[in-house]
Amino acid sequence: MSHFLAELIGTMMLILLGNGVVAGVVLGKSKAKDSGWIVITFGWGFAVMIAAYMVGHYSGAYLNPALAIGYAVAGELTWLELIPLISGEMVGAILGAVLVWLHYYPHWKETDDAEAKLACFATAPAIRHTPSNILSELIGTFVLVFVLLALGAEGLVFSDGVKTMVVGFLIVSIGLSLGGTTGYAINPARDLGPRIAHAILPIAGKGSSDWKYAWIPVVGPILGAVLAALVYGFVI
Amino acid sequence: MSHFLAELIGTMMLILLGNGVVAGVVLGKSKAKDSGWIVITFGWGFAVMIAAYMVGHYSGAYLNPALAIGYAVAGELTWLELIPLISGEMVGAILGAVLVWLHYYPHWKETDDAEAKLACFATAPAIRHTPSNILSELIGTFVLVFVLLALGAEGLVFSDGVKTMVVGFLIVSIGLSLGGTTGYAINPARDLGPRIAHAILPIAGKGSSDWKYAWIPVVGPILGAVLAALVYGFVI
Amino acid sequence: MSHFLAELIGTMMLILLGNGVVAGVVLGKSKAKDSGWIVITFGWGFAVMIAAYMVGHYSGAYLNPALAIGYAVAGELTWLELIPLISGEMVGAILGAVLVWLHYYPHWKETDDAEAKLACFATAPAIRHTPSNILSELIGTFVLVFVLLALGAEGLVFSDGVKTMVVGFLIVSIGLSLGGTTGYAINPARDLGPRIAHAILPIAGKGSSDWKYAWIPVVGPILGAVLAALVYGFVI
Amino acid sequence: MSHFLAELIGTMMLILLGNGVVAGVVLGKSKAKDSGWIVITFGWGFAVMIAAYMVGHYSGAYLNPALAIGYAVAGELTWLELIPLISGEMVGAILGAVLVWLHYYPHWKETDDAEAKLACFATAPAIRHTPSNILSELIGTFVLVFVLLALGAEGLVFSDGVKTMVVGFLIVSIGLSLGGTTGYAINPARDLGPRIAHAILPIAGKGSSDWKYAWIPVVGPILGAVLAALVYGFVI
Repeated sequence: MSHFLAELIGTMMLILLGNGVVAGVVLGKSKAKDSGWIVITFGWGFAVMIAAYMVGHYSGAYLNPALAIGYAVAGELTWLELIPLISGEMVGAILGAVLVWLHYYPHWKETDDAEAKLACFATAPAIRHTPSNILSELIGTFVLVFVLLALGAEGLVFSDGVKTMVVGFLIVSIGLSLGGTTGYAINPARDLGPRIAHAILPIAGKGSSDWKYAWIPVVGPILGAVLAALVYGFVI
Repeated sequence: MSHFLAELIGTMMLILLGNGVVAGVVLGKSKAKDSGWIVITFGWGFAVMIAAYMVGHYSGAYLNPALAIGYAVAGELTWLELIPLISGEMVGAILGAVLVWLHYYPHWKETDDAEAKLACFATAPAIRHTPSNILSELIGTFVLVFVLLALGAEGLVFSDGVKTMVVGFLIVSIGLSLGGTTGYAINPARDLGPRIAHAILPIAGKGSSDWKYAWIPVVGPILGAVLAALVYGFVI
Repeated sequence: MSHFLAELIGTMMLILLGNGVVAGVVLGKSKAKDSGWIVITFGWGFAVMIAAYMVGHYSGAYLNPALAIGYAVAGELTWLELIPLISGEMVGAILGAVLVWLHYYPHWKETDDAEAKLACFATAPAIRHTPSNILSELIGTFVLVFVLLALGAEGLVFSDGVKTMVVGFLIVSIGLSLGGTTGYAINPARDLGPRIAHAILPIAGKGSSDWKYAWIPVVGPILGAVLAALVYGFVI
Repeated sequence: MSHFLAELIGTMMLILLGNGVVAGVVLGKSKAKDSGWIVITFGWGFAVMIAAYMVGHYSGAYLNPALAIGYAVAGELTWLELIPLISGEMVGAILGAVLVWLHYYPHWKETDDAEAKLACFATAPAIRHTPSNILSELIGTFVLVFVLLALGAEGLVFSDGVKTMVVGFLIVSIGLSLGGTTGYAINPARDLGPRIAHAILPIAGKGSSDWKYAWIPVVGPILGAVLAALVYGFVI
């Protein structure tokens, strides 16, 4: 399978399962309604874990343009390799969001709150505060990229199949500990792809796609990933 | 152990533990009453994990006619092999539901809501909407079968015992992310077997077995499994 | 380490962590107060997992007289070997309960409900119904012993350290799915040992030790374990 | 990487993720607000797991002065080796707390309760009772150190990467079962480092740093660790 297709399929699965858990928790009449942060965070963690198991041996399962850029900065990917990875991730993220919309189709019109509907696609900050929101996304992505680089360090050995499980738990951890501020996009494709889908799809009773916030979960994660790669290179 | 017996025992265990967690959450006076979606989804995930560890090396632990059909479409099972697998799964599912009824015996008459009692056996949609309900079951089962096929791909290696744990987490993930709509039957035996038990058993104060919905968690999962096998064959 | 001492230490740890989680959830002013069934069930599951890792390579980490009796019926232990195992488990269970009492010392007098205090030691049924209570304990223990025997089957291989993790998840699973009725003692030492401690210790404002129920979490688990060993021998 | 730097980075990550989850649960307007004990305990468990994977092969990932002292008593570390370990842990803990403050920056002034703000840095007992509070910290740390020593016993083998996962679950277990009393510092650096940060940082609307309690989560854990090492040496 090509890197483009693998990242597309992996990210589509990631967004279907990841944004799917948000939809389950916030949409009207869902059986998972109001089931809380533990459901959100394990939902996203397992979404990444499953997607990573699925396409890891085809493309490395980056599933995240910021992560791929961080690996390029760290010298683990060439800049040319980023093109099929990131384009696959963006297409996959949009398609995954379309699947979430279809999966929960009759629930959209049972939901009054337009912001809750947007939350099933893109992140929004708990408190709007541009420098803090960027910093939160930067810190969350720094942890993601720094730990992933560390898990790949020479001398750190994992039995087959164990490392991907740890990656899933890392995502749960970031969500539990750092997600309360901006909803931990920590991935430009995860936020921008579904936001594009939100803007395009005929979602019943949808509101604004909040484009004025859209650059933060793109820029913050990229800054965090680049910084993580630089710091990692420095301390190791 | 024969494939028939292994699937029977495995599916009986799956339904005892899986439908058991629903009974624990919804039945009157249960100590697990109203403990929420995280309990339901981990309960089902561990139910599949335990059943799969138990009979995996005897029969492959399909535990699900749709999954077995998907594997037949993918050429991993012959159509003849489906007969003992699916018949074992159906008998096991019915017997498992009988065990749930016995295990929670004094709780049925402490529960007023007849729909809650049915929920301990068969699924019901959050919103009745036939095409969407079929689509939800199709998508959930597509994820299940596509990921399971991918986990068996050449070149993807698991240390002994790790893969079955991942399968359990996959079930938790599907439940967390895609279960809010129809309650993720994603398995004809899991829904139809206990529904038959519900119709037959002298459950205190039981209501309708909701037969008009019963075809959806049979047809939706089979469609999803066949589609997953076809798409998987195409992209790999 | 002798089998007696290993089972003593393991069961003491099991009860400290297992009954400790109940104390955390039910005692007045605890930071874990009312944190629900997911906390109880993961608390007990990890308690077994940790205790089993700790003493598994010394004594097999039975930690449960019913389990040991089941293994004797299955021919995996001699009857003579049961003596140090079960006596160690009983002593350990009593000592573990003493530690729970000490650990939560100032919380006992902040708790009004005497039944809640007893719940930190011994189980009580959600609905008193002798045959159903015995059956629930029998079914829960049947699942425990049958699955543990199956996990040890020839041909089922686990990488080092993975099987004990699965055993922990099995305990979580039994709790989530079958614990709602009687609180899943599924272990005579786990119930009787702490009940003896409850009777003896000067717990502030304690009520009855409910001795009339005490035989059920002894007899039910032993019946379930023996039945599991017999059925397992028959089907394999 | 030097032991000092590895412990510094590991403990910084531990405190960022560990104290971060408390901030997420208690600070005003956080998306994780009031998400409960299961979030706190898994948050801390995964925090330790991630930090231990990250620096384990550089320094052993003690991340805890009491643990390091216990290992010195057990003869697994020389007393001289403690100096870089403990100093790295203290610096890392302070820096990690600064990161938590920055990450949740706009949330501090949205939180009225000054005790809740302190809880994002240091522990406080549910009930102030000096001997019981010391005992709780002693017991929690005893379990931590005794089990970690036991997991390293000769003859207990783990596949690569599995043991660190178990260590994470051990932390979840201690939190679930023993954390309800004093909030399970079980680590002098985890409590004292962030308390120093709390005293120094210009946190909006902060109250007392509760220095009169500060010695208990230092002394209790050290006593527990030393006792665990002695008892472990005696019984093994």
